Amino acid sequence: MKIVILGAGGMGSRFGLMLKKAGKDVTLLDGWDKNIEAIREHGIRANYNGEEVQVDIDIYPIDDFAPDLKADLLIVFTKAMQLEDAIQATRSIVTDQTKVLCLMNGIGYDDILRKYFDDEQIVLGNTMWTAGLEGPGRPKLFGNGYVNLLNLGKSEEAAAAAKDIVALLDEVGLNGVYEKEIFYLIYKKVCVNATMNGLCTILECNMADLGDAQASHDLINQLVKEVVDVANAEGVEMDLDEMIEHVGECFNRETIGGHFPSMYQDLITNKRLTEIDYINGAVAKKGKKLNVPTPYNQFLTSLVHTKEQLLGAK
Amino acid sequence: MKIVILGAGGMGSRFGLMLKKAGKDVTLLDGWDKNIEAIREHGIRANYNGEEVQVDIDIYPIDDFAPDLKADLLIVFTKAMQLEDAIQATRSIVTDQTKVLCLMNGIGYDDILRKYFDDEQIVLGNTMWTAGLEGPGRPKLFGNGYVNLLNLGKSEEAAAAAKDIVALLDEVGLNGVYEKEIFYLIYKKVCVNATMNGLCTILECNMADLGDAQASHDLINQLVKEVVDVANAEGVEMDLDEMIEHVGECFNRETIGGHFPSMYQDLITNKRLTEIDYINGAVAKKGKKLNVPTPYNQFLTSLVHTKEQLLGAK
Repeated sequence: MKIVILGAGGMGSRFGLMLKKAGKDVTLLDGWDKNIEAIREHGIRANYNGEEVQVDIDIYPIDDFAPDLKADLLIVFTKAMQLEDAIQATRSIVTDQTKVLCLMNGIGYDDILRKYFDDEQIVLGNTMWTAGLEGPGRPKLFGNGYVNLLNLGKSEEAAAAAKDIVALLDEVGLNGVYEKEIFYLIYKKVCVNATMNGLCTILECNMADLGDAQASHDLINQLVKEVVDVANAEGVEMDLDEMIEHVGECFNRETIGGHFPSMYQDLITNKRLTEIDYINGAVAKKGKKLNVPTPYNQFLTSLVHTKEQLLGAK
Repeated sequence: MKIVILGAGGMGSRFGLMLKKAGKDVTLLDGWDKNIEAIREHGIRANYNGEEVQVDIDIYPIDDFAPDLKADLLIVFTKAMQLEDAIQATRSIVTDQTKVLCLMNGIGYDDILRKYFDDEQIVLGNTMWTAGLEGPGRPKLFGNGYVNLLNLGKSEEAAAAAKDIVALLDEVGLNGVYEKEIFYLIYKKVCVNATMNGLCTILECNMADLGDAQASHDLINQLVKEVVDVANAEGVEMDLDEMIEHVGECFNRETIGGHFPSMYQDLITNKRLTEIDYINGAVAKKGKKLNVPTPYNQFLTSLVHTKEQLLGAK
């Protein structure tokens, strides 16, 4: 089974490392020259459960790979705003038999994937593994995690293929879970991302400090309410109080509260453009379509874009 | 005519200096010990139109002044959130004959003043003089300005008294203007304060940079729209496009664009609590009462309060 991973950032490198380490046939495609050079020279290097590991793995530029490369499984882990361009550039590696697995943070990716692939090919999910890069070719691996997923296609074949992917992930230690209510889980994660990412970025604080600032709770509750309203309008049943409680788990200093969300690292630390359009922006866009008011998500989207422009993010 | 100025910060000191320099009988009341000490020792010192000036002036703590002190004119220039306490502490200096002039930034002060004084006593307005303090007893005086005002009382006597105040301000160089549409002018100024103050504070930028960031215009236009909606619902006629154009004048680097608004200086520079509740917060409060949606103003209010708490502002 040929696995191609599109995007070898923190999450793509983690999946690549764990799949390859278990003996799978994996090729990475990436757009960052220094990352490609580093992985070609040294493989992927990481501290993996306390042990320094190094795994050699094929990697090619997204626009310069072998013309006969075909994937049985394509896993997409690009930056949100690069997904559509990356799919177009690598369209030739996807056949009718290829399954496309998308576990990226945020919502609206199914709309992009459906423009290029049949529902029967698409597997959607999210992942509770953390991701980060210490530098080119050096993913940060810490903590434990799992992967929730579900086939978009309605056929038995689509379900069977998704379950095969679950088995594959299980086999290599990535812990797959076959889910019925995948859109519920995706929206549940959006509740966290739509609050912690944008607010910690704009306020330049970690999640525990955000939670300690009592005035933040009006913001958080309103943002979550809009996400829940949009999900409900889409037919995904969600309970507001449950989601607010779920988001509140981020404030715990004993667990993850001390972390700065990835968007903070993108924009404040690295002056890179954020994925806000695929989190709060996507909520606002869906809200508009469904006639659900989402002013808080819209406000936060514009505020983060303003900050990107002020910092000259690229 | 005995003039008492409540609050000897940047604006109170400027008014005190200009009134006293022209020979008026002025007493200051203030709550900041170092400021009181400095003014008692050296008077108010400032660079006034290129010339170093020094004016001796009486100043007392807000809770420790001569028991027989009575004001013919009380000018209030406290911090917004201190106004009501300051009025209560100095209630004895206001007689039935006293006029109370309020030129403070924001909206909702008329509601506070009306709890303690008769409409016939109250004169409301705003001022286009800039204000700032270099240190205790040292106001920064730059640029030119004027004062718009109108009596709240409907009687001819109230109008005559307000016109006397205009004449007084004119006489000492503070440029009084008697206005019919004072609430229009107050809301017009709120359009500027409700956008520039909160956004430049949260984004830590000056007004010209804010204007250059194209994504800020969605935020600004929505905030102004809500102010205009609230004003219209209160019976104060305002035009949205005109107000957006007015706010846009702040972006001009040749004039005021390089300035950081006073709220930025309060919170980011000096870690002091802001007046957000009397600007965006007051718009949201009025919106709620009048059934006008104001989510953008509410979001910005909570965001600034969160930042205050994160910075431990006092």
